[in-house]
Amino acid sequence: MKKAILFIIDGLGDLPHPETGKTPLQTARLLNFERMAKEGSTGLMSTISNGVVPGSDVSHLQILGYDPKEFYPGRGPLEAYGANMELKKGDVAFRANFATLTGGKITDRRAGRIDSASAKKLESTINMKIDGVQFIFKATTEHRGALVMRGKGLSANITDSDPHHDNETPICKSLDKKSAKTAKLINKFTSEVYKKLNNHEVNKGREKPANVILLRSAGIAMQVPKFQEQFKLTAACIAGGALYKGIAKYLSIDVIEVDGATGDKNTSLTAKGNAAVTVLKNHDFVFLHVKACDSFGHDGDFEGKTNMLKRIDAELLPILRESGAAIIITGDHSTPCIRKAHSGHEVPILIWAKGERVDGGTTFDEIACMKGGIGHIRGKNVMPLILDIIEKAEKYGS
Amino acid sequence: MKKAILFIIDGLGDLPHPETGKTPLQTARLLNFERMAKEGSTGLMSTISNGVVPGSDVSHLQILGYDPKEFYPGRGPLEAYGANMELKKGDVAFRANFATLTGGKITDRRAGRIDSASAKKLESTINMKIDGVQFIFKATTEHRGALVMRGKGLSANITDSDPHHDNETPICKSLDKKSAKTAKLINKFTSEVYKKLNNHEVNKGREKPANVILLRSAGIAMQVPKFQEQFKLTAACIAGGALYKGIAKYLSIDVIEVDGATGDKNTSLTAKGNAAVTVLKNHDFVFLHVKACDSFGHDGDFEGKTNMLKRIDAELLPILRESGAAIIITGDHSTPCIRKAHSGHEVPILIWAKGERVDGGTTFDEIACMKGGIGHIRGKNVMPLILDIIEKAEKYGS
Repeated sequence: MKKAILFIIDGLGDLPHPETGKTPLQTARLLNFERMAKEGSTGLMSTISNGVVPGSDVSHLQILGYDPKEFYPGRGPLEAYGANMELKKGDVAFRANFATLTGGKITDRRAGRIDSASAKKLESTINMKIDGVQFIFKATTEHRGALVMRGKGLSANITDSDPHHDNETPICKSLDKKSAKTAKLINKFTSEVYKKLNNHEVNKGREKPANVILLRSAGIAMQVPKFQEQFKLTAACIAGGALYKGIAKYLSIDVIEVDGATGDKNTSLTAKGNAAVTVLKNHDFVFLHVKACDSFGHDGDFEGKTNMLKRIDAELLPILRESGAAIIITGDHSTPCIRKAHSGHEVPILIWAKGERVDGGTTFDEIACMKGGIGHIRGKNVMPLILDIIEKAEKYGS
Repeated sequence: MKKAILFIIDGLGDLPHPETGKTPLQTARLLNFERMAKEGSTGLMSTISNGVVPGSDVSHLQILGYDPKEFYPGRGPLEAYGANMELKKGDVAFRANFATLTGGKITDRRAGRIDSASAKKLESTINMKIDGVQFIFKATTEHRGALVMRGKGLSANITDSDPHHDNETPICKSLDKKSAKTAKLINKFTSEVYKKLNNHEVNKGREKPANVILLRSAGIAMQVPKFQEQFKLTAACIAGGALYKGIAKYLSIDVIEVDGATGDKNTSLTAKGNAAVTVLKNHDFVFLHVKACDSFGHDGDFEGKTNMLKRIDAELLPILRESGAAIIITGDHSTPCIRKAHSGHEVPILIWAKGERVDGGTTFDEIACMKGGIGHIRGKNVMPLILDIIEKAEKYGS
């Protein structure tokens, strides 16, 4: 039985360095990437369509075979899944964070970056019921968390209560008539939270008390076909970042917790690689995710991104090669260091699998892949290609 | 703030010359095109889809980011905009031309190519109201003009009144029940015009009197989102041909009048290039159009097309390169000289912008671009690519 690892290097694609004219992939000597390019085929992948700049949430859904036009629930529900919360159809979910409110205005949007342990202690105080609607909060790291509203007739067509700037008042506004109830409930919740948190024991002595919860990225929970049913594959996710685990959970992909998988530059690539090989024993498909290249791109840290690619090349690829699975390597989008932001530029893709066509290319970078044998594909083509490679594609017609 | 010039060389693409096996782009030595190809990336663009032969109106709408299936109002309204007429929603507009009617039949479809000044004198006589419907005519060059019908319940689902051949009677027929009123009005209009023009002073002594107006390409005026709102870009158009200015006006793109921009082979490329650089000062985006390559293609004039490309290379490209803007060069479709008509063959495209990926190609022609790093794209991809290059693309998802 053939199996596959889809390895997504977040923010992989880049633009030429203004001085050297080379991208990070071109700058590092990546012997294992080169070897796999020689033994496989490469190309370029446009996640949504040429020039379209995708967020990480939308791009992962698309690459994993779920058209975001149909299945993107907004960032809130995916973050809530990532915080290990359960969602029911009709729930409204948010990204949430502790902030400091003084005299009715926000004075610190991160409540002095409250530590995770202290934030955790506030969870139970925040969980409440207002007018029959449940507010369920979960703290994640530092000031961050997720919030789920559960009740009848809720809508996500509202503004953030997070004003996104200091010295402003947190307020949620409805964007249509149907969402007026939800907005009103959120504003009541904001007041209630302040009343309960402002004199809370945890906040005693804190210069910047965590006395309010700001909400953003509202989305309504929706049902989505399970990955296993959609593709007839048992699937596992190995990722450090909460969002990626949340996306996997949303698609009913098994999320494997790996010690040392941090979702940042200190992540243990060996641990993740070994975990991928292990879970392949009882799964057909592994979605393996490494975040740090994207973070280095956002920071404009060309050297950091280059070094992370070197680490992936040296520490992770040898393990994947030994797994016996088909390996598909790509990114979810480009995050050019010079832009410190996502861009719409195509991302290199590499298909390395026993018995597949070999295009004769020798390197894996943005320029070499322009001439790769896979050509220029779209994110929506990735899952069908993988299914075909591992002989799990269903015939269309007869 | 990054800016862009989209330079459309009308009818750019071609087929191999039957004797030399080379296209016009391959025949001329085009040093500036070569230089920009070396410094940028190339590819091929299929305006609508492979093999589909587009008219210039449809192809420009598509490349400028407006799906013609949704936003093509027909040629008539675009010509009316090009003649600097105002259109209201529901107006029916036509391409119009003076012709000579003798004994109820057309004897010259161009009224002896009446001069523009004489034609202009007939305008006010033709403007009239019939059964509450206004007929507004504007003469443009020689026998050509545009006509707008304004009133209630008009339809464009009618035949041309122009019989397209001499020795036939101009008559407009309705193509469904709803358009019967419009067709009847047009036939009344044709009679009225003849009555008023046949003995008009301008026609005294003319061997071929301009005594009738033939109408074709009916289209109903529709509202379209303004380019500036659609793409969050301030935009200007520099073109000689009326149709291209009309398309720009339809999309609410600022039309810049340039002395010496004629829309034919005698156009001043220097004047157009300089105007493009000037308007970039207060616009984000310039749509620059040169028509003559298409006209030479229609005439089957291979040498003329080749020489026009040489002129563009020598006179226009150096100015564009100096503008500091991202330069995107392509055509709206192919007009192979051997066919003397549009064809569905892909058109070369060149992206030349600071900081973008460079594909290593060295020439710009139909064959070299087959291997270009941009790959094979569609007309609808052009605007998203430009938005991404100048960092004006909105993120999809978060």
